[in-house]
Amino acid sequence: MCRASPVSYRFRLCLAAGILKLMATPSPTAPDFSHGGGLLPAIAQDAATGAVLMLAWMNAEAFAETLATGRAVYFSRSRGKLWRKGEESGNVQQVEGIFVDCDGDAILLKVRQQGGAACHEGYPSCFFRAVTPRGLEVIAERAFDPAQVYGAGSQ
Amino acid sequence: MCRASPVSYRFRLCLAAGILKLMATPSPTAPDFSHGGGLLPAIAQDAATGAVLMLAWMNAEAFAETLATGRAVYFSRSRGKLWRKGEESGNVQQVEGIFVDCDGDAILLKVRQQGGAACHEGYPSCFFRAVTPRGLEVIAERAFDPAQVYGAGSQ
Repeated sequence: MCRASPVSYRFRLCLAAGILKLMATPSPTAPDFSHGGGLLPAIAQDAATGAVLMLAWMNAEAFAETLATGRAVYFSRSRGKLWRKGEESGNVQQVEGIFVDCDGDAILLKVRQQGGAACHEGYPSCFFRAVTPRGLEVIAERAFDPAQVYGAGSQ
Repeated sequence: MCRASPVSYRFRLCLAAGILKLMATPSPTAPDFSHGGGLLPAIAQDAATGAVLMLAWMNAEAFAETLATGRAVYFSRSRGKLWRKGEESGNVQQVEGIFVDCDGDAILLKVRQQGGAACHEGYPSCFFRAVTPRGLEVIAERAFDPAQVYGAGSQ
């Protein structure tokens, strides 16, 4: 009975219910969190521009919370806990679509990035450096100053 | 003296030389293959359309060969060896740009995908299934029949 609008709270609840059911019934086409020690790579892509914003990691809990809330939640490997993207900076990611790859071990999120920047260094994308014959070169403009968003001691 | 055209053989050689130099001098801004047991996630994005085609893995050798040849080379975790994308199907990826993320532990390739499909299942992108309240749904058309490309016993 999941006939609600694609962006509604009810839709997200239905989505979460459907996915929890999928996860409870292992399938080769569902995300398989038995890989990689329970962590799968998750790509965030800007739903409007197509820009690849970042690559992070999800465990089953982060995936379930993303589905339930409609906001991207990752698992921080460095902090060893869930990372609700934007919890510190306010730059949350509203999830517009979720896709799983052929092997079920990589996730793609299409998101609306709040604040104009996904990267903690203030750039729209974390991939703001290009490999060139002269080394890595910054190819983007900062959308914000990390020191103002995260405090003076931050990068 | 790397003044050759961005698509030329000489450019790629210069690029390879520059990167090998970078890799020989560890830097927080270069890909750091000491992470993840020497394997970093590498996203392939269609340079023309912006579509995310696949996520694979690179070790330092795959990265160096990609730079030297201008074609995407990954490391196959299942086969435990280098995977020259397209070596079996002919669907090679010509690399137009390489980007490294803020933490130096994820790679983004912008590629021209030959054959119209990156996925071994015949779809343009490996992310051909969307998460919906009804489960995973195929949202793309196959560009080729895997049985014809890889043989009848393949997926």
